[in-house]
Amino acid sequence: MTVPYSPGLEGVVAAQTEISEVDGQNGRLIYRGGYLIQELAERSYEEVAYLLLHGEPADAVQLADFKGKLAAACALNAASSAALSGLPLDADPMDALRTMISAQGAAPDCPKPDLQAAIAATAVTPTAVAAFYRHQRGQEPVAPRPELGHAANFLYMLDGREPDADRVRYLQTYLVLLADHGLNASTFTARVVASTGTDLWSAVVAAIGALKGPAHGGAAAAAMNMIERVGGPESAERFVIDALDRKERLMGFGHRVYRTYDPRARILRDLCKEANRHFYDVASRVEEVALRELVARHPERPNATNVDYYSAGILAAAGFPTEFFACVFAASRMAGWTAHVLEYMTKDGRIIRPASEWTGPDPSKRAAVTA
Amino acid sequence: MTVPYSPGLEGVVAAQTEISEVDGQNGRLIYRGGYLIQELAERSYEEVAYLLLHGEPADAVQLADFKGKLAAACALNAASSAALSGLPLDADPMDALRTMISAQGAAPDCPKPDLQAAIAATAVTPTAVAAFYRHQRGQEPVAPRPELGHAANFLYMLDGREPDADRVRYLQTYLVLLADHGLNASTFTARVVASTGTDLWSAVVAAIGALKGPAHGGAAAAAMNMIERVGGPESAERFVIDALDRKERLMGFGHRVYRTYDPRARILRDLCKEANRHFYDVASRVEEVALRELVARHPERPNATNVDYYSAGILAAAGFPTEFFACVFAASRMAGWTAHVLEYMTKDGRIIRPASEWTGPDPSKRAAVTA
Repeated sequence: MTVPYSPGLEGVVAAQTEISEVDGQNGRLIYRGGYLIQELAERSYEEVAYLLLHGEPADAVQLADFKGKLAAACALNAASSAALSGLPLDADPMDALRTMISAQGAAPDCPKPDLQAAIAATAVTPTAVAAFYRHQRGQEPVAPRPELGHAANFLYMLDGREPDADRVRYLQTYLVLLADHGLNASTFTARVVASTGTDLWSAVVAAIGALKGPAHGGAAAAAMNMIERVGGPESAERFVIDALDRKERLMGFGHRVYRTYDPRARILRDLCKEANRHFYDVASRVEEVALRELVARHPERPNATNVDYYSAGILAAAGFPTEFFACVFAASRMAGWTAHVLEYMTKDGRIIRPASEWTGPDPSKRAAVTA
Repeated sequence: MTVPYSPGLEGVVAAQTEISEVDGQNGRLIYRGGYLIQELAERSYEEVAYLLLHGEPADAVQLADFKGKLAAACALNAASSAALSGLPLDADPMDALRTMISAQGAAPDCPKPDLQAAIAATAVTPTAVAAFYRHQRGQEPVAPRPELGHAANFLYMLDGREPDADRVRYLQTYLVLLADHGLNASTFTARVVASTGTDLWSAVVAAIGALKGPAHGGAAAAAMNMIERVGGPESAERFVIDALDRKERLMGFGHRVYRTYDPRARILRDLCKEANRHFYDVASRVEEVALRELVARHPERPNATNVDYYSAGILAAAGFPTEFFACVFAASRMAGWTAHVLEYMTKDGRIIRPASEWTGPDPSKRAAVTA
């Protein structure tokens, strides 16, 4: 039996998963084990990554062991260091990350994805991001200090200074909230790639390339650029109406699955009030006008604020320049991607090879091959 | 409306395409414009890549122009050369290719996929493969000589000697036959990645990672390893029966779509008779026994010989070691991947974001978060 074409595979169930669930009708995001995202928002990234990878919360001994494994795997190897050294200074940071993670994973043969590889990819991503951040600035990488914790060490590697507790909290909250999100495009990519039996690094490298897209991980940077263009809260009304009159898309609104307010956006919105007051003042006013206008103009559409919108304010407050937002997203989502790859290998494993519908001419109906 | 889970997305139409069509019922492979694969088998790779990318055959002027564009883009840049320099000698060649192509594509921002990027990725892939082949052997890369033609230059870059015409013909036939094949897993990967609006290099890097899998581009190497284990034609009967009795999988048989003999396998089989007689003698005898036994034991399954089986003999005759088979596959499929990416961007463009089915516990039914 053939299932007809649904653009974007909308509504096509392409996975059975227990890694996470986006309950769009009720505005819930559920992480593995049945935890609502708001129950986990103040946990450490290591605890949440453990939960996504193992299926149940770590006890103290398990968590210490997991942190030890992350610490042991967080350094760049010779291959990724060499790849870094040749990257153009003006390369998109996501291209740099894609290349460095690919190099980091270069190994003999085609090892089956396993927990060790999942931990290694999760551990090294912040190191790669920070190293390219410094490469762009003509600086040598800062050696990781994983004993600071995953989020604090990430910030430490940017400038070699121990970050203050607030910045760590902003980054950690972001990393926890974005760590998995159902069958989004990059996670689906990772599962498709893994379905061929390839190694874990191939799957996450592919996912990085998907996340780079403006319709996916690029959206927070676009939201920041938009808020910067608005300038101040007093310009919000005019900006939104002009943009919508010109049929331009407002960044940060609408989602394929959510029909209510994204629970992650709510948490990040509240955090923005404290972390990035200027951003909050502009963004919340833009949001107010945008939701009013979008609902009036397109009542049939899902118009709620999505996670990218307030992510922008939090990532800036944590200390990342706009062009690195997608890389921090990748560092967060690495736990989710790898959990999905491991799940696919153990629970399904069938190659994902859909059908296609031919829209070209039939061989009997075209001219002969030209000479 | 939700379409229920179909493992491997079997039978789910996930694209409308005019790049190629696998007509499994009738054993036909149709390339863009409506050409049957057997009509194109003796064409040059450049002609076929042009056809896939442009939608109609090139005239002499267009072909010369296209070759000029390939020639201008076939050198490694500084980023991929640096990435190459750091790769472990024992890395899987597909990991090397994934990394080098990622580095080659590192650029500012997120350029929309275009024909120029498609040509650049197609042009540089053989150069990257050959450079890593030499890196493993402690040799500097050989500078490309694109005036030899795409296939001949590929072989030339392996050892710096102009290849004889037969080897060029074997490789060229392979490159033409494998250049596209409907919505296989790596092509689907490229389309999913491209659907986020990301750049072309991200899409093809992802596709390389998918192709690496043993259930996809790794199959020809596995077929060669199997034929080598058989040894001679006289051992075929025993080998096949023993393997099937032990419930082992025979490499090179069965396909998701074909219900008859793969037309590419037929062409490569005939070519093997001339190009690689020892391989042919063993492989054709194994095939005979395998098809007899598979049909007897599993009459319900599609058991026909697939393209990977005789690919192995042709790639060996062209001069590639077994561990490089998947890389040559990637060099061929690059034209198809990039054609699919360009098609997706111009014709559809919607983000591919399927649904998933939650198999974990409901939040109301689990214990509280542990401390």
